[in-house]
Amino acid sequence: MIAAKYKEMLGAKSVIRELSEYATARGKEIGYENVFDYSLGNPSVPAPEGFKNAMMRLLTESDPMAVHGYSPSLGIPSVKEKIAQSLNRRFGMDYTGNHIFMTSGAAGAIAHAVRCVTVPGDEVLTFAPFFPEYHPYIDLTGAKLKVVPADTEHFQVNFDCFGEMLTEKVMAVLINTPNNPSGTVYTKETLERLARMMSEKAEEYGHEIYLISDEPYREILFGGVEELYVSKFYDNTLSCYSYSKSLSIPGERIGYIAVNPACRDAETLVNMCGQISRGIGHNCPTSIIQLAVAEAVDETSDLSVYETNMNILYRELTGLGFTCVKPGGTFYIFPKALEEDAKVFCQKAKNYDLILVPGDSFGCPGFFRMAYCIDTEKVERSLPALRKFVETEYGLQ
Amino acid sequence: MIAAKYKEMLGAKSVIRELSEYATARGKEIGYENVFDYSLGNPSVPAPEGFKNAMMRLLTESDPMAVHGYSPSLGIPSVKEKIAQSLNRRFGMDYTGNHIFMTSGAAGAIAHAVRCVTVPGDEVLTFAPFFPEYHPYIDLTGAKLKVVPADTEHFQVNFDCFGEMLTEKVMAVLINTPNNPSGTVYTKETLERLARMMSEKAEEYGHEIYLISDEPYREILFGGVEELYVSKFYDNTLSCYSYSKSLSIPGERIGYIAVNPACRDAETLVNMCGQISRGIGHNCPTSIIQLAVAEAVDETSDLSVYETNMNILYRELTGLGFTCVKPGGTFYIFPKALEEDAKVFCQKAKNYDLILVPGDSFGCPGFFRMAYCIDTEKVERSLPALRKFVETEYGLQ
Repeated sequence: MIAAKYKEMLGAKSVIRELSEYATARGKEIGYENVFDYSLGNPSVPAPEGFKNAMMRLLTESDPMAVHGYSPSLGIPSVKEKIAQSLNRRFGMDYTGNHIFMTSGAAGAIAHAVRCVTVPGDEVLTFAPFFPEYHPYIDLTGAKLKVVPADTEHFQVNFDCFGEMLTEKVMAVLINTPNNPSGTVYTKETLERLARMMSEKAEEYGHEIYLISDEPYREILFGGVEELYVSKFYDNTLSCYSYSKSLSIPGERIGYIAVNPACRDAETLVNMCGQISRGIGHNCPTSIIQLAVAEAVDETSDLSVYETNMNILYRELTGLGFTCVKPGGTFYIFPKALEEDAKVFCQKAKNYDLILVPGDSFGCPGFFRMAYCIDTEKVERSLPALRKFVETEYGLQ
Repeated sequence: MIAAKYKEMLGAKSVIRELSEYATARGKEIGYENVFDYSLGNPSVPAPEGFKNAMMRLLTESDPMAVHGYSPSLGIPSVKEKIAQSLNRRFGMDYTGNHIFMTSGAAGAIAHAVRCVTVPGDEVLTFAPFFPEYHPYIDLTGAKLKVVPADTEHFQVNFDCFGEMLTEKVMAVLINTPNNPSGTVYTKETLERLARMMSEKAEEYGHEIYLISDEPYREILFGGVEELYVSKFYDNTLSCYSYSKSLSIPGERIGYIAVNPACRDAETLVNMCGQISRGIGHNCPTSIIQLAVAEAVDETSDLSVYETNMNILYRELTGLGFTCVKPGGTFYIFPKALEEDAKVFCQKAKNYDLILVPGDSFGCPGFFRMAYCIDTEKVERSLPALRKFVETEYGLQ
């Protein structure tokens, strides 16, 4: 008989996807250029030339048997080594290729990391607001995702709630900084306090508590924000990375887990990932993309448009009276809605062809997300619509 | 705490991998060209020009945002449609794109198919000899793989044993034709009888029994063997395909599930695969490889070398007195060893730099596998070693 668990999931549609589909449909009526679609977190800048050139070289100059041949299940050794060296240069770590496990994006990385350090029934904590896909990512492993309520003032960590929820059943804590959807970046103080509490509780409970750090936005960091590498703060850290955003190649499904060399059983965990892959359909990314990424390991797309867009929107939103934490990175902003129910607020915004996503599914009702990975020209054209929406529906703030 | 289940798996090394590593090490001593390495099932011919050209066109002529952008979770619609049309043309099916779910190779396809039609505790039957990775593929879903003993005379199906083992607990039957490791192709009679028995038992038990057909070798078929499409024989069939062998791109991790339109809940099953993906780290293959494969959907590499190699080996092996079913496809042959314990037999062969894999891990002790996806020149050079091995160790047969 077919698996009821998955069949039942078909009923629940993703709010983000529904809004994106609405935007596409509305675009067919009035022209998509007139729909101010802030729904989807898709990169809006092309991949860097270095990545394209690497792909072309691999296709024209290399042995096709090597380029298209099987990758070892942990990833291609030379690729892993280049990634390790790049992380060491940039963040003062001491990884070797043996600490890197290649994955199909951050989704693949989290799928392996959670299976590595939990068994069914264990709890994994994350912090609101959070990426809604964490629920299927974690829950379908058999572990249970528990959400620590948001610190809505700064979108750092609500430590009071965290302290209460960090019980003996918690085997892993999943963080995401720079954060989707808030755009905030955890401060040094936040990471230090988080690490201290986790270490103390791990000691008290007599078992490790692993930190799974989801870092796809690591390189999208705005001026004045300190670049902090999570793994430097806590030994038992599994960094889950994706090149989707930094190289604008989300469809190429490539990323990795970097296990902190100071992590207990570090190399064993990497090897275990190879075993986990056998059970979930081999998440090892494609060989040619692994090889191409290794050539572009220190590059990024031109990411400056995101900061430009953020500044325009932040100025406009605060000018209109929105309460809003200024993003330190990503391509998201997460203001407070102008009425209690952000779903109603976002519904009204559709009348102005503004596609905004209510914060409810991010675990943070009353707020809304704007994904400003769109052309700056369109952001600017959206401002009159935003003003008209606020003034008409809520009066001048 | 780290997951003991995966940690324990680290102990058990794959026999094939160990032999392959031995061959590589031995190659460093005497030159790899002098090691007759029949261990690994890696394609030995390059990808067709059509595939390479499609990749180059995508990189140079298409919008990088489309080429490298997210694929929908079920796969890119235009790619799915092209695959459906190709299958319809070749096999007289009536698929639409809605019956196709794109996967990262056959491993990804099986990972989804099994989760679709079983729940933990259900049984999945397969037939010896079988690809040893089926054990982690199936067992790690929570379902139980049960192996029907081999029909060692023809490597078709041992129907007596199958009849006994096809109990009410069996929700799926997993077949692989053309078969790794035997190289045999199921006949029309085999497929008809298999389908009839499954239909009767499904009726008797009051639940569907799905046929999961693992078909990576579908296009490697030798002269005189009838090309049969499994799904034509049984409605509730999920065809699991990989382009690894037909296009010689095993590292690019691309394949699909084609759900027979006559299958109960066909489109629901495809949609369920999208949900399953969320829990196992999104097995959707990379966008650029999907798009390139769609351009090469009716092509294959030049696969003729495999038949050439098979004929040389079959003639030599039977001439030396081996009992051997003549392969109808793949790049494997699976003769009976010249002593009872094939592990001992293969161990002795190493002294002649012949790397043969004992049949034990394929569920068929007493036989051994040769993977002849190597250059014909090397196959020919291996014959004197094979003769010397047999004559020295076993006398003239």
